[in-house]
Amino acid sequence: MEKVNIAEKLGQFNDHWNPRIIGELNGQMVKAVKLKDQFVWHHHDHEDELFLVVKGTLKMEFQDKTVFVMPGEFIIVPHGVEHKPVAEEEVELLLFEPATTLNTGNVENERTRRNLEVI
Amino acid sequence: MEKVNIAEKLGQFNDHWNPRIIGELNGQMVKAVKLKDQFVWHHHDHEDELFLVVKGTLKMEFQDKTVFVMPGEFIIVPHGVEHKPVAEEEVELLLFEPATTLNTGNVENERTRRNLEVI
Repeated sequence: MEKVNIAEKLGQFNDHWNPRIIGELNGQMVKAVKLKDQFVWHHHDHEDELFLVVKGTLKMEFQDKTVFVMPGEFIIVPHGVEHKPVAEEEVELLLFEPATTLNTGNVENERTRRNLEVI
Repeated sequence: MEKVNIAEKLGQFNDHWNPRIIGELNGQMVKAVKLKDQFVWHHHDHEDELFLVVKGTLKMEFQDKTVFVMPGEFIIVPHGVEHKPVAEEEVELLLFEPATTLNTGNVENERTRRNLEVI
């Protein structure tokens, strides 16, 4: 039972769209990630995803609207819902999601990350 | 898919040790709570619990050590582990835990809260 300092974890890497695992509980993962530019449209068949913004403004695009999520705010994207995260400036955030969640959901491409590093 | 502003949710109530539900995903709840003074020693038989501090210093007592958790830090308490949260000054935090989690765990007393309010 050690505490985790979120800023310290985020300071350990600089690449984008490559989540690191910083906690695990009840089959769920806490991940830290940095975003920059656009991701891909995707959904997750079974997993809901929580995005908690630490720095920057996350622009979450849905098919019918766009939500801007600021530091101290989070958004939950239910399973099945198409979404595209966009970071016009760099964004730092935490993800809470099941251990099974693939970052690109139903899409597999060069952005897909497996076997995430635990830091 | 609306975003949630954590400070706005915490501004909606002033009582202590009475968690509100501010998000739900994958059978897990995101709760906001304010703490002041001591809680009771307890454990959760099945649920791991994450405490993410927003304001103040959470003093988490375990049987063999004490951890001070500051804003921007979290601690995960695995199921089965006896713990006692203490807030010498008021603490504001988020909890991330299964929907089934009772605040007092294996103990039932006047601090126990059921049927939490969703805000």
